[in-house]
Amino acid sequence: MDAIPGGVAAPFGFRAGGIRCGIKKSKKDLALIYSEKPAEAAGMFTKNRFKAAPVILTSSYLKSGKKRAVIINSGNANAATGRRGLEDAKKVSSALAARLGIPAGQALVLSTGVIGRFLEVEKIVKSIGRLSESLSRGGSTSAAEAIMTTDTLAKEKAVKFAAGGAEVRLGGIAKGAGMIAPELATMLCVLATDAAVGKSALQRALRSSVEKTFNSINVDGECSTNDAVLILANGAAGNRRIREGTADFKRFRNALDHVCAGLARMLVADGEGATRLVEVRTDGARTVSDARKVCSSVSNSLLVKTAVSGENPNWGRIVSAAGASGACVEPARFSLSIGGCVFFSEGEPVDFIEEAAAAEMKKREIIIHISLGLGGKSWSMLFPDISVDYVKINMGYS
Amino acid sequence: MDAIPGGVAAPFGFRAGGIRCGIKKSKKDLALIYSEKPAEAAGMFTKNRFKAAPVILTSSYLKSGKKRAVIINSGNANAATGRRGLEDAKKVSSALAARLGIPAGQALVLSTGVIGRFLEVEKIVKSIGRLSESLSRGGSTSAAEAIMTTDTLAKEKAVKFAAGGAEVRLGGIAKGAGMIAPELATMLCVLATDAAVGKSALQRALRSSVEKTFNSINVDGECSTNDAVLILANGAAGNRRIREGTADFKRFRNALDHVCAGLARMLVADGEGATRLVEVRTDGARTVSDARKVCSSVSNSLLVKTAVSGENPNWGRIVSAAGASGACVEPARFSLSIGGCVFFSEGEPVDFIEEAAAAEMKKREIIIHISLGLGGKSWSMLFPDISVDYVKINMGYS
Repeated sequence: MDAIPGGVAAPFGFRAGGIRCGIKKSKKDLALIYSEKPAEAAGMFTKNRFKAAPVILTSSYLKSGKKRAVIINSGNANAATGRRGLEDAKKVSSALAARLGIPAGQALVLSTGVIGRFLEVEKIVKSIGRLSESLSRGGSTSAAEAIMTTDTLAKEKAVKFAAGGAEVRLGGIAKGAGMIAPELATMLCVLATDAAVGKSALQRALRSSVEKTFNSINVDGECSTNDAVLILANGAAGNRRIREGTADFKRFRNALDHVCAGLARMLVADGEGATRLVEVRTDGARTVSDARKVCSSVSNSLLVKTAVSGENPNWGRIVSAAGASGACVEPARFSLSIGGCVFFSEGEPVDFIEEAAAAEMKKREIIIHISLGLGGKSWSMLFPDISVDYVKINMGYS
Repeated sequence: MDAIPGGVAAPFGFRAGGIRCGIKKSKKDLALIYSEKPAEAAGMFTKNRFKAAPVILTSSYLKSGKKRAVIINSGNANAATGRRGLEDAKKVSSALAARLGIPAGQALVLSTGVIGRFLEVEKIVKSIGRLSESLSRGGSTSAAEAIMTTDTLAKEKAVKFAAGGAEVRLGGIAKGAGMIAPELATMLCVLATDAAVGKSALQRALRSSVEKTFNSINVDGECSTNDAVLILANGAAGNRRIREGTADFKRFRNALDHVCAGLARMLVADGEGATRLVEVRTDGARTVSDARKVCSSVSNSLLVKTAVSGENPNWGRIVSAAGASGACVEPARFSLSIGGCVFFSEGEPVDFIEEAAAAEMKKREIIIHISLGLGGKSWSMLFPDISVDYVKINMGYS
């Protein structure tokens, strides 16, 4: 597996573009990802009960048939917008399908931005011609820019690898940077591959990768109304169709894991106001669920996140968060280290060296290692610190 | 029921005091609450698996017999301190019992402060003589000051009321101001009453009041290792013993609700960095559990809390938090208002007046009203905003 440029449009037969249609004051706000031929498609969506209109529409469209295009606007989530919101999402999809000359239902729609405002559909519809003209093999970065909200960097990644007797490509774009929590859903991400993959294999591989990557990051404990991950597979590479349970499927899943993990890491590193990237690894758990609960509680703890922001080796907050996680935790078996510095070992605090602890906390990437000492299961999660800038950004954003 | 001064030492037969023993650099850090005669006692404690040593010791002492005294240090939580931590808590209890001439096991111990450091037992033990000499009927404020951590104000409250043919008194002190979350436990609070109350009636009344008050506030979603609420009832008022299921019990419970609610409100208003006090009321829920889940998710949402801090009527974040709560929520039945301003009604956004919304967000106390439209159950919770100061305080604290 080798990294290649080109993001979501790196796979053969895909093009992408991004423009400004005027929802945002001065930045790009409309992206399109297009497949030259019909592609198998799969998706994972937010578990929030207030699903945004485009999420409702797109997940219903995904139930049958191949897909050709995904249009995404930023600046407005089209969420909590009632019946009109759903009509608006349909109008965008229909206008795009008409312009591209594809059947209705092959044009998927996603939105991100402020919740509770009606979508400026006219601005989008009027710009669809210009948007489709902007499509190119080199358009991934423009598309990635056009889906950004508070992100400071466009996020894209692609790889090539061998599968089914051919060289195939897989790439994607994603956006963060707030309202991100694990075990609920993810953020916005569109993936494309030119591998030929069956629909159920595609859905299964996506679910597995998302659990390990986008469902294992936590910026601020929030599950948004608009979270979605889509993947399109158009078969343009000419490989033998990838089926579940084969060595090719394993290679495909590895590549998908790799791309999703790379994008997830970029999301965390670019979390709102983030100054540090933290990985919490929990092992020795009785069950995977317990290991996840501990990771989730630590990665969700405001006190841990503000301590990291302050370069403060306040390890007691990590112990407290683990103890409050709901997982089976025995204090007498519990051990904790940060980087190379051991703070707590099998129930007893360790006389650590202040300078060594301070040095660990100054690193840009921090690894918290928790050992429960109760079994053989493990999990890990990524999260950023919460800084003064996080609060400033979210005091004002709307 | 009438408010009276005197806090935790307002009830007859109680005295309180607070001094500095040297754990903190310049502030009071050691408090004592003392009953002249043995008192029935009850407690509720954190559900964190990492219970602090004093919590383990005090909850075991509470299993049998009457109690005479509670000693509390701030500046050090004596949590995650292993076997030595438990020995240290016992040393403090034993030294106090010896000084007061009471049986071992009648002196309860609580601690609050930094987690993971060994307690400076010698400083406490050497100061116990001076601490017991500081006891007085007017000593509640000193005791309330000595248990403060990042609190900016001492918290005390007391009432008198009639029960069992006599006038009885009930009062308490409490501390916040971070690591506070609902449905897990509470913070530090000591209550005293001169009413004669049976042990099981006392425990039952305490549990009921705590659910409605201390378990219905959320500063930062954190469940600490040291949370505890204790109540002592010494019978000095000479009333007929209060038994469960009687009108007297109801009066006692009302008074306890009132004192706990008052202290809980003070905790929220003095939450770390707080500039606003928010009440979220959820009605129309199918179950009380659903109503609590919605309140809990909204009160736990960093995005809601930072929006409140920024006086930003970003009501979509409230909708999203309710939708992600895990409760049964039907978007088409859901309504939301803040103060007098309706934002969302039965699934549809309402065309609200910007100036009216802005005016609501400028108030010091904000009421969020959510109606699920699915049943007859309700709940409410209090929480503060999260400001830049919250982050600054917690970047540095240890």
